[in-house]
Amino acid sequence: MKFTVDKSLEILERTPQVLITMLQNISSDWTSVNEGGDTWSVYDIIGHLIHGEKTDWIPRTEIILSENMNKAFTPFDRFAQLEDSKGKSLNLLLNEFKSLRERNVEFLRSKTITIEDLKQTGIHPAFGEVSLGQLLSTWVVHDLNHIAQVSRVMAKQYATEVGPWTAYLRILQA
Amino acid sequence: MKFTVDKSLEILERTPQVLITMLQNISSDWTSVNEGGDTWSVYDIIGHLIHGEKTDWIPRTEIILSENMNKAFTPFDRFAQLEDSKGKSLNLLLNEFKSLRERNVEFLRSKTITIEDLKQTGIHPAFGEVSLGQLLSTWVVHDLNHIAQVSRVMAKQYATEVGPWTAYLRILQA
Repeated sequence: MKFTVDKSLEILERTPQVLITMLQNISSDWTSVNEGGDTWSVYDIIGHLIHGEKTDWIPRTEIILSENMNKAFTPFDRFAQLEDSKGKSLNLLLNEFKSLRERNVEFLRSKTITIEDLKQTGIHPAFGEVSLGQLLSTWVVHDLNHIAQVSRVMAKQYATEVGPWTAYLRILQA
Repeated sequence: MKFTVDKSLEILERTPQVLITMLQNISSDWTSVNEGGDTWSVYDIIGHLIHGEKTDWIPRTEIILSENMNKAFTPFDRFAQLEDSKGKSLNLLLNEFKSLRERNVEFLRSKTITIEDLKQTGIHPAFGEVSLGQLLSTWVVHDLNHIAQVSRVMAKQYATEVGPWTAYLRILQA
């Protein structure tokens, strides 16, 4: 499927409400635990999504579309949420994510991005030249990636409880 | 985490609204496509969830809890939805799943299942003896498995659009 802003917005504008529906007021037994080692809990994932809204997708879009000759992206901090979320409840984080996303979706709509704009590029710290189309596609897939991760982290809390059915549940092997 | 009916209901009662929030009125470009070969589209997955509500989780719970000595489960048809969903829109299937799940959640609550009940068993066609606790845990993980699958099937529609970012998006490798 070819990238379009409209089809991408269909996902981007739904994600906060999807996560709120899954997680608001749920027992912390589901959301404060991780997949072992230094993997993330559901709580960590929502903090990570917030940090992306603040520092990644729209700031990088602005770099690509700006008149400024310096097209280098600031590296994204994958661990910022461990500090930023401190003392906040999951419900608070979900609402913060929702507000930030609403603002960012509104910004994206206001830009009325053209096919030509999608070919404009910025410089990613690891990949080098990347296009606006690739950045915005990644934003969408990143949302879906983390919805799947939230599902997986929660599913694994019942990994032993399912007994022999583990063989039929791909999510427990992932 | 140990299985409890209450913690399981937290997931089971949310799943229809999670899927409705993700999918209602979205372009069929996201939902009518699959992951290649004979994998399932989002549309197929919702049909499969409906078939589970009708023939799997509660009918098997009833077999386990009944006075009847015959504890053998009817094998589940993983392909029934390909026939059953014919001619129905995705929105219609989502609402059908929601109604069936509401009824089944209500049934589960009405049973006031005890710790002793959870140890009762039925005979699975492939695994042999399985307990009610394992069956109900599997119902929960099965929901989360298919929410993750829906996310993955949609994410893969942008697999090439993300360019080099594919390396950071685990969902595209799954």
